[in-house]
Amino acid sequence: MKDYIKVDEWRIIEEGFKPEYNTISESIFSLGNGRMGQRANFEEAYSGETLSGNYVAGVYYPDKTRVGWWKNGYPEYFAKVINAANWIGIDIKIGNEQLDLARCKVSAFRRELNMKEGFLRRNFRATTAGGIEVEVEATRFCSIVDDETGAIRYTITPVNYSGAITISPFIDGDVVNKDSNYDEKFWDEVTKESWADGGYVQLRTKKTGFEVATGQRFTVSQNNLPVDIAAKKVEKDKYVASAIILEVVAGQPITITKYAANISSQNYPADALKEVLETTLKTISEKGFEKMLAEQAEAWEKKWQHNDIIIEGDASAQQGIRFNIFQLNQTYTGEDDRLNIGPKGFTGEKYGGSTYWDTEAYCVPFYLATADQKVTRNLLLYRYKQLDKAIDNAKLLGFRNGAALYPMVTMDGTECHNEWEITFEEIHRNGAIAHAIYDYVRYTGDEKYLADYGLEVLIAIARFWSQRVNWSDDRQRYVMLGVTGPNEYENNVNNNWYTNTIACWCMQYAIDVAEKVEAMEPAKYEALMNRIGFDKENESAKFRDIIEKMYFPYDEKLGVFLQQDGYLDKEQILVNDLPATERPINQKWSWDRILRSCYIKQADVLQGIYFFEDKYDIETIRRNYDFYEPRTVHESSLSPCVHAVIAAKLGDEARAYEFYLRTSRLDLDDYNNDTEDGCHITSMAGTWMAVVQGFGGMRVKGGKLSFNPFLPAKWKSFSFHVGFRGTLLNIRMGKEGVQIKNLSGNELTVTIYGKDQIIKANNELLVEA
Amino acid sequence: MKDYIKVDEWRIIEEGFKPEYNTISESIFSLGNGRMGQRANFEEAYSGETLSGNYVAGVYYPDKTRVGWWKNGYPEYFAKVINAANWIGIDIKIGNEQLDLARCKVSAFRRELNMKEGFLRRNFRATTAGGIEVEVEATRFCSIVDDETGAIRYTITPVNYSGAITISPFIDGDVVNKDSNYDEKFWDEVTKESWADGGYVQLRTKKTGFEVATGQRFTVSQNNLPVDIAAKKVEKDKYVASAIILEVVAGQPITITKYAANISSQNYPADALKEVLETTLKTISEKGFEKMLAEQAEAWEKKWQHNDIIIEGDASAQQGIRFNIFQLNQTYTGEDDRLNIGPKGFTGEKYGGSTYWDTEAYCVPFYLATADQKVTRNLLLYRYKQLDKAIDNAKLLGFRNGAALYPMVTMDGTECHNEWEITFEEIHRNGAIAHAIYDYVRYTGDEKYLADYGLEVLIAIARFWSQRVNWSDDRQRYVMLGVTGPNEYENNVNNNWYTNTIACWCMQYAIDVAEKVEAMEPAKYEALMNRIGFDKENESAKFRDIIEKMYFPYDEKLGVFLQQDGYLDKEQILVNDLPATERPINQKWSWDRILRSCYIKQADVLQGIYFFEDKYDIETIRRNYDFYEPRTVHESSLSPCVHAVIAAKLGDEARAYEFYLRTSRLDLDDYNNDTEDGCHITSMAGTWMAVVQGFGGMRVKGGKLSFNPFLPAKWKSFSFHVGFRGTLLNIRMGKEGVQIKNLSGNELTVTIYGKDQIIKANNELLVEA
Repeated sequence: MKDYIKVDEWRIIEEGFKPEYNTISESIFSLGNGRMGQRANFEEAYSGETLSGNYVAGVYYPDKTRVGWWKNGYPEYFAKVINAANWIGIDIKIGNEQLDLARCKVSAFRRELNMKEGFLRRNFRATTAGGIEVEVEATRFCSIVDDETGAIRYTITPVNYSGAITISPFIDGDVVNKDSNYDEKFWDEVTKESWADGGYVQLRTKKTGFEVATGQRFTVSQNNLPVDIAAKKVEKDKYVASAIILEVVAGQPITITKYAANISSQNYPADALKEVLETTLKTISEKGFEKMLAEQAEAWEKKWQHNDIIIEGDASAQQGIRFNIFQLNQTYTGEDDRLNIGPKGFTGEKYGGSTYWDTEAYCVPFYLATADQKVTRNLLLYRYKQLDKAIDNAKLLGFRNGAALYPMVTMDGTECHNEWEITFEEIHRNGAIAHAIYDYVRYTGDEKYLADYGLEVLIAIARFWSQRVNWSDDRQRYVMLGVTGPNEYENNVNNNWYTNTIACWCMQYAIDVAEKVEAMEPAKYEALMNRIGFDKENESAKFRDIIEKMYFPYDEKLGVFLQQDGYLDKEQILVNDLPATERPINQKWSWDRILRSCYIKQADVLQGIYFFEDKYDIETIRRNYDFYEPRTVHESSLSPCVHAVIAAKLGDEARAYEFYLRTSRLDLDDYNNDTEDGCHITSMAGTWMAVVQGFGGMRVKGGKLSFNPFLPAKWKSFSFHVGFRGTLLNIRMGKEGVQIKNLSGNELTVTIYGKDQIIKANNELLVEA
Repeated sequence: MKDYIKVDEWRIIEEGFKPEYNTISESIFSLGNGRMGQRANFEEAYSGETLSGNYVAGVYYPDKTRVGWWKNGYPEYFAKVINAANWIGIDIKIGNEQLDLARCKVSAFRRELNMKEGFLRRNFRATTAGGIEVEVEATRFCSIVDDETGAIRYTITPVNYSGAITISPFIDGDVVNKDSNYDEKFWDEVTKESWADGGYVQLRTKKTGFEVATGQRFTVSQNNLPVDIAAKKVEKDKYVASAIILEVVAGQPITITKYAANISSQNYPADALKEVLETTLKTISEKGFEKMLAEQAEAWEKKWQHNDIIIEGDASAQQGIRFNIFQLNQTYTGEDDRLNIGPKGFTGEKYGGSTYWDTEAYCVPFYLATADQKVTRNLLLYRYKQLDKAIDNAKLLGFRNGAALYPMVTMDGTECHNEWEITFEEIHRNGAIAHAIYDYVRYTGDEKYLADYGLEVLIAIARFWSQRVNWSDDRQRYVMLGVTGPNEYENNVNNNWYTNTIACWCMQYAIDVAEKVEAMEPAKYEALMNRIGFDKENESAKFRDIIEKMYFPYDEKLGVFLQQDGYLDKEQILVNDLPATERPINQKWSWDRILRSCYIKQADVLQGIYFFEDKYDIETIRRNYDFYEPRTVHESSLSPCVHAVIAAKLGDEARAYEFYLRTSRLDLDDYNNDTEDGCHITSMAGTWMAVVQGFGGMRVKGGKLSFNPFLPAKWKSFSFHVGFRGTLLNIRMGKEGVQIKNLSGNELTVTIYGKDQIIKANNELLVEA
């Protein structure tokens, strides 16, 4: 755990140069706009520890699988969003010395991520080995207005030096991925060009053939007056730069303003990229840095109006939750149904920028409440479009008749992961994908989605489950063998309660939705049934038979659902009785020891209870919570949020707050010593969940929003925005009670503490706690 | 399955040049002498498909682990016996054309492995692209008399050519391993030298620093008259050659006789290698090829006298069993307790030449009966010497107090394997290592071994088991969670019956042996107890408590031991009802599907019944055999032998013979399409077992040998040799009954068909069947 980030409600601030934390800061101060993103690398050269990262959403490379021992069914490659051309680079030479903070004496270093307005600013003073002192301010952002672009304003002022300074803005596509399996480079050069005031490189990914044109235009001023640029063009493999030599006088600033853009063949024909790039660069450079920055602030303000959470009385918590919301919005904007949310977003290479079940299980609730419904709809469509590949994937594993198994990790629908116990067995992901459809329809009321897309996915998933179970003659029950549940500290278990539960739920939901669609849109229903050859009578009967005769491990004595067969055979030493020196067990224990222990990495039975809470009475929930929580080590960042929501439901406010704390500043405090790899983007949605569903007690039931808020003891108040079916609400929980503002022009009935309340258009209401 | 090897009782013969089978033949025709070995590569250049392989026993390289997803506890490297300098090379240039069978028209090609006398001979006629025809005969062997040496006689006769022929015998250390994880080369050159009639290369392995001096001396004759050699020395990196140009006349043969040796720093100081090499080369070249070959034949004859199996009436079976015995003798001679038996011996790279539990479970019975008892004793000492590392290995996995877990795969005692479900969980290997001690003492009566070495190993293993189980409050029994049994088509299961059984057996045996040693050698006992801190009272009590309260899965209704918890939840479709197109399942099915099926890769419950048959009545054995065999796919070559022995015991002669057939010609017929990787050396011992323990019904009980033979219907007779406590017997089962010859000078009582019989010294006895 680190503690070097200054607390500020709207800004993330690092003061003083800490090269030892640089890769952590590069993650935390990352920028993104849903379309592209980057780590907070320095513009000028840096020979110290750094992980260079620029990413273009959806542009990936299928890296050849690396594996110790091959198992049948493993994929040939792991698709990863790859390090793309570095467009921030500005090389600085003062006299004969290259500016490189690793080789300078650095003072007054400050890095600031302004979350309110969406930019990154860095200031420092540096003294070179030769004794030259300069002062620098660099401001940059990825535009959320023109989302293929970014801009940088870089001002350098020589303090004690007059003479030549060479400024070389560059585009460098000769980059590597640290996580490349075989030390390959992933890009080939297509073409490049230098202009008087800029240049570009067009690259093509190997194998996948994506092309991206990355270009720059720049202006230079000296002592605040524009300078005519007479640049020397420098070209290398996949690299263009323009070296501009200026004679400077001590104390007079030089500013280079650099406009950049990434234009991808995902969106334009490859042969049009150059033209689009030139037009784009022209547009933004004519708009100018100041105007772009102002538009950026305005656009972020709009976002914040809809999804800010305000915490009074705890600046550190305030900073933490805003950072999470900010990063989620930087990562995914929901405008493109080919994109999804990598666990690290644009902040690092880890997990390859691919899609996991995190999206459906943790991110969907956030986007449903804080963004237009089309955002979540696009996340669902992403999976809909990959249905054929999910069916192919299931075929590979021996399933038939249109059964679909969505991949554990994917970019384009093809499975990428290669650990048998995960790839082939952590199949509950299929359930989360079905559940997200349910969640979306429950929240938005958009039942038309079911007829158009949802049902087809649901039937394919239900078919999978119906084939994945088998009849046990011995038990006279259906069983599900050889799975890995959400708790990955158990592998290849039989009858994981969560998986059996969500499997049956999926089959029932598919039956229900089929009936609904048949009644609602008979023609569409008919067409779909013909297309996918669904034998409603027999297949539904099969589903029902399984639902009815499914085996669920349960302990009568304890009155708890058993995580899986044999769970009670384990030595039951509670986490509290485990010496601190043994934790985290994933660093201290060999894998077999973890597996045969009773310790739970992340909510498993409780994940099921979280998803389907209405099926269980409060005492059942309490017994399971009381049993499982003390056995849970929460070594996944996706665990505490579910516990927070359940603890809140059970009225255990103190524990709910504790769980919230465990992830609220996960990256800002580098709690798990791994932020250097990137930020935990998807678990940030979990933190939001802990506040809104936990402290706010928000649910959707019977087409209505309901709240059951409590105020954590340390806070004066908290408030959040929620959009629901066209109405925007602000809910503020303070000592005086719950205040609900309706910011829209239509009235809405919501349930507060179990009682329906009508909130008039543009009006507000206070309910005492 | 191939069928190109000619049937011959004493020889393995390939006729006609089959480049498409070359890598298979290279495996089958391999040579070895326990100290070194090689694949049957050609002496002259060959640009076709080939896997070059020369190995020096015990010289290994720790290749950096390659893994997809790292798990705590994985080893840093995988030690492998590596491809060493090629000492067979003789490059031939006829005029300007290099002799290379891949570029010639080849006729009259014949490869013959003479098992009786222990040499490889190859004949062929080749016509070069330029139309030159030559005739070649090449004979070579790895000497089992001078076991650091080998020799080659290579005769080439130009048929239609007179002119220059250049003969370049060489030593080439610039070799690679095909299975190198990161395409590294494993050897560095230390030094090299060329002499008038030879030369050598001294190499050092990277990391491990083993040095091996590989050298050659040669003589040349033309038209059967010695030639004074005027060679041109050729030196390259790790390579020496001597180019000898001869003017030849059509029809006149040229013969090069090449003597070679591998001298290793395992056996001499590194700086003495050159001297030892020179002396060795001098000795063998003075002895001469003919004498060496004669000595080789004589030495092999002695071996055959002690371990030949003669089958009358089935030449194909005869060839198969002799091939197995021959290869086992080529692989391991038992003279060096630092060496062991790799699953592929010297015939390929696969499995890295490392030690597996195959040695103890399958090879020990073979060597006990066919070789001096010191051979098996050295196999036991190999593990004894690695006990400290086995204790370290267990520590790494969280065990304490001197508990030992022997590695799954090892060269020097360190674990090399990196699959969690195997490395950490296939722990039954510990049991096989204890059982081999039991087997050795039972067979030889050498109880002193227990006091000197055995007990220490047994206590360390028993300690491991006592910590590996845990008390289940739920069952009120000890359980063993998260293991992989011998049937590797199940991973991470709970309460594998075999593992629980052998664990309890180990603890009981440790207690029994401790008592025996205490009584027999009180001083040694006392010293050992002090050294390892064994608290006899408490630790034995703990062992006893576990043995008494261990849980064993059992099905009352079926009356069978259950392979593991939940085995009966599986869909019970018998192997016979599985379409042939689905088999072998390890090629047709994804890994999860294999795991959740009921199909068994190799004997698991039956392996336990095989080890401990006296604990179970015949009906229990029959029920388990009848239940498990139809569920066994035998996709491990180690499976059929155990089934053959049990089937024979149950009187199911036809099935016993069927099982025997499945492995008897496994490599000769390339039954599994993988002989190109090397021969299945360890499972060859299983075939021997099927004959001797299966058809011969041999057992050792109460210090006596017993036999219960039957004659497979297709055979006229079979006979085998068995050495037992200083007495050599020949047992011949024919239609007239069992004939036992005592070939030694002391009488022996053996049990035939349940009745004791005294066989007088140098006498024989016939018992009717």
